[in-house]
Amino acid sequence: MSREVDVAIIGAGSAGLYALSQVRRKTDNFVLIDGGELGTTCARVGCMPSKVFIQVADDYHRRSIFAREGIDGADQLGVDIPAIMEHVQDLRDVFVDKTLGVTDGLDDEHLVRAYARFIDDHTLEVGGEQYRAGAVVIATGTVPVVPQPWQAFIDDIITTDELFELEDLPASMAVIGLGSIGLEIGQALARMGVDVTGVDLLENIAKLQDPVVNQLAVETIGKDFPLWLGQAAQLEKTDDGIRVRAGDREVVVDKVLASLGRRPGFDRLGLENTSLQLDDNGIPVYSAETMQCGDSSIYIAGDVNMDRPLLHEAGHEGRVAGYNAVRNTAVAFKRKTGLAITFCDPNVATVGAQLDELDEAAIAIAEMQFGPVGRALIIGKNRGVIRVYVNRSDGRVLGAAMACVKGENLAHLLAWSIQQRMTVFDMLKMPFYHPVIEEALQGALYGVLSELDISEDVVELEEA
Amino acid sequence: MSREVDVAIIGAGSAGLYALSQVRRKTDNFVLIDGGELGTTCARVGCMPSKVFIQVADDYHRRSIFAREGIDGADQLGVDIPAIMEHVQDLRDVFVDKTLGVTDGLDDEHLVRAYARFIDDHTLEVGGEQYRAGAVVIATGTVPVVPQPWQAFIDDIITTDELFELEDLPASMAVIGLGSIGLEIGQALARMGVDVTGVDLLENIAKLQDPVVNQLAVETIGKDFPLWLGQAAQLEKTDDGIRVRAGDREVVVDKVLASLGRRPGFDRLGLENTSLQLDDNGIPVYSAETMQCGDSSIYIAGDVNMDRPLLHEAGHEGRVAGYNAVRNTAVAFKRKTGLAITFCDPNVATVGAQLDELDEAAIAIAEMQFGPVGRALIIGKNRGVIRVYVNRSDGRVLGAAMACVKGENLAHLLAWSIQQRMTVFDMLKMPFYHPVIEEALQGALYGVLSELDISEDVVELEEA
Repeated sequence: MSREVDVAIIGAGSAGLYALSQVRRKTDNFVLIDGGELGTTCARVGCMPSKVFIQVADDYHRRSIFAREGIDGADQLGVDIPAIMEHVQDLRDVFVDKTLGVTDGLDDEHLVRAYARFIDDHTLEVGGEQYRAGAVVIATGTVPVVPQPWQAFIDDIITTDELFELEDLPASMAVIGLGSIGLEIGQALARMGVDVTGVDLLENIAKLQDPVVNQLAVETIGKDFPLWLGQAAQLEKTDDGIRVRAGDREVVVDKVLASLGRRPGFDRLGLENTSLQLDDNGIPVYSAETMQCGDSSIYIAGDVNMDRPLLHEAGHEGRVAGYNAVRNTAVAFKRKTGLAITFCDPNVATVGAQLDELDEAAIAIAEMQFGPVGRALIIGKNRGVIRVYVNRSDGRVLGAAMACVKGENLAHLLAWSIQQRMTVFDMLKMPFYHPVIEEALQGALYGVLSELDISEDVVELEEA
Repeated sequence: MSREVDVAIIGAGSAGLYALSQVRRKTDNFVLIDGGELGTTCARVGCMPSKVFIQVADDYHRRSIFAREGIDGADQLGVDIPAIMEHVQDLRDVFVDKTLGVTDGLDDEHLVRAYARFIDDHTLEVGGEQYRAGAVVIATGTVPVVPQPWQAFIDDIITTDELFELEDLPASMAVIGLGSIGLEIGQALARMGVDVTGVDLLENIAKLQDPVVNQLAVETIGKDFPLWLGQAAQLEKTDDGIRVRAGDREVVVDKVLASLGRRPGFDRLGLENTSLQLDDNGIPVYSAETMQCGDSSIYIAGDVNMDRPLLHEAGHEGRVAGYNAVRNTAVAFKRKTGLAITFCDPNVATVGAQLDELDEAAIAIAEMQFGPVGRALIIGKNRGVIRVYVNRSDGRVLGAAMACVKGENLAHLLAWSIQQRMTVFDMLKMPFYHPVIEEALQGALYGVLSELDISEDVVELEEA
């Protein structure tokens, strides 16, 4: 038996659901296919539970400033880890329920709970049935990477797929991989009293390209837990747990958090049966502006394409893929200004172009250390830095990196400014309240004026 | 003896110092005159110490969520009020020192520590000497209002000029006047354990025009301390303290915080000797775009003119006044988009045009309640609302009011957007990360789309 549909969407995660929102505006003849657990990666095991976990850890950690502020009794505070995990799970369930609203409303014709496999570009086999689809959207997401040798002691390896399911936490852990997830979770675990060691092959954390920001982030977060950088981790099972070696350092821990990244969910997809050209990593070659794979009728959206594994980018890509899939078009849409935030303390954020994409001779760097920033002093978090990359010739802001308190908010202000092609002069004409963290950005922008090829008489003012 | 100067600036506070920064770029023949204590209102008794005070109160108050999060021992926390006050004073001193940097660098020719009095538009008497000035900038700031009848028990009245000097806090207080200062300080005092009663003649707090935002703010902040609204306070000295009556309610308190607003510092200025036209409140008539008083050579800047008593506006006005004073011009500069933030919890903020300035038939209101906002739920502060005023005909965002967590940051994003004349459609094309509080704004904007006279096919996308 075979069914004809206008569009088949493989994967009912964030990207798939955003694609669906576009498809449904044009046709009811679609099928959404998912063989795994419903509920998005973001809500089930990603953004949402991790932010709850971090919130509790940060609230608990805040006690370290209490004595200085005149609040007594900080040493009487303690954590009830099972209660924390229950709190995380409770809120997680709320968020998952919200994402299930869409799929709950679909009948069996529109939602098929099985895995899809390409027979050819237009034909999918799903649970023994064949679907002929005018267009297909691949939105199968990703799964955590766990290296093959670690399979020997897989019971001692935890990924974020399992972490938030735990009822208690191990006494000691190594966090292998210090990208966003490793940093966020490692710091939160440490602040909850777990004896954490962080290890990464690279010298930079959270993918930071900026050496000044990276150094500050490493030094500051390194006060919460040791960061072993620049050496690969070697793991070995011992009687007491897992021995982790990196260079000449070693530690024995109860469990290892594998935060080495995620790989595309292509396992059951039969991509080899399609006409798609695959890149060196086995990912279909596609356009980031149309989400179309080559000139096929197949579109790919979300973290499965390994480009921008972020919820809001999955939303964008899903919409574009859905828009084009239901029309069998390849309309190109502008990408949003890049924005990546690691919710550690201090927040690490990058916006727009980073140093490896810029010609350093053509830019000036607006830098502000947070030491003297009034609001940061008041909060007691004045270890931070923001660096803004500015085109020397015309003052246009191209990108930024930061490790600072409220970086998530500064990053939005900067991303919106960059997407609107604002210059330093444009930005300095905007209101900066007092005392707010936005004044750190203002300070950075003032500092770079003398390094630009152009100038204005009174930068803050605009004649009426 | 008489001295000729290009510009005389009366008042070495924030507005005066910003004016000076412009004047010095053109001439060294200026005099800065101040008979009071040096250091700005902002740093000495305003923005800065109040934010430290609020930070401590909020950190202490945070314990109310600890049990829910799985953090034990919240009931063991307590406040050491003298230690808190010392912390506030320590940081206050740091901020005051920073503002003294400018005046410390001035010799006796350029900084005169006495009060100035106009003899005529161009002549000032200052400590027995006469100054002939090409232009004068009035930047004499404001002093707290204390009604005449209260002088009978003035020892029981505290203003923000004195509050942060206290070594201990009274056990009970009435806060009379629930503008920004009264709300911020009243809530902080309550959270530190002072038995606070708030009273205001008006039904709206923090000058909120928006009834929905006002109601939410009143209900939420009213959980910290009772807000008696809509009745004038009557004060009377008793054996036990001060009896405060408002309508049929009354309470006896140890001290009263007078936060009824501030009045211009004109007392010694001899404005009657100038040619300036004064308005009904005795304030010189001036242009908000040039800061010039009538067509005179006198300019007025900062909170003394009672228009926008905010530090960043004092900066703007001071720059404009200084720019024009040193040139004897009246160049008009655009005002920045209005932005006012009350740093209570939830933050209360207004941006751009408010309801009393708008034609309600011509606007649609984008509203988002924070109940379901993911990040607000995670923080445990999902009582909040944001309301954005949008031009129906073209979707342009005109203003906003909000009472919500991280309102200070949302207000900046909105103020910058409004100053750039962005529409709802422009804003929805910007990146919104996840999970962030900025998504509440996104939700509000989505919600208003159906009420606009125009529409776009896929509002989030822009063709390349």
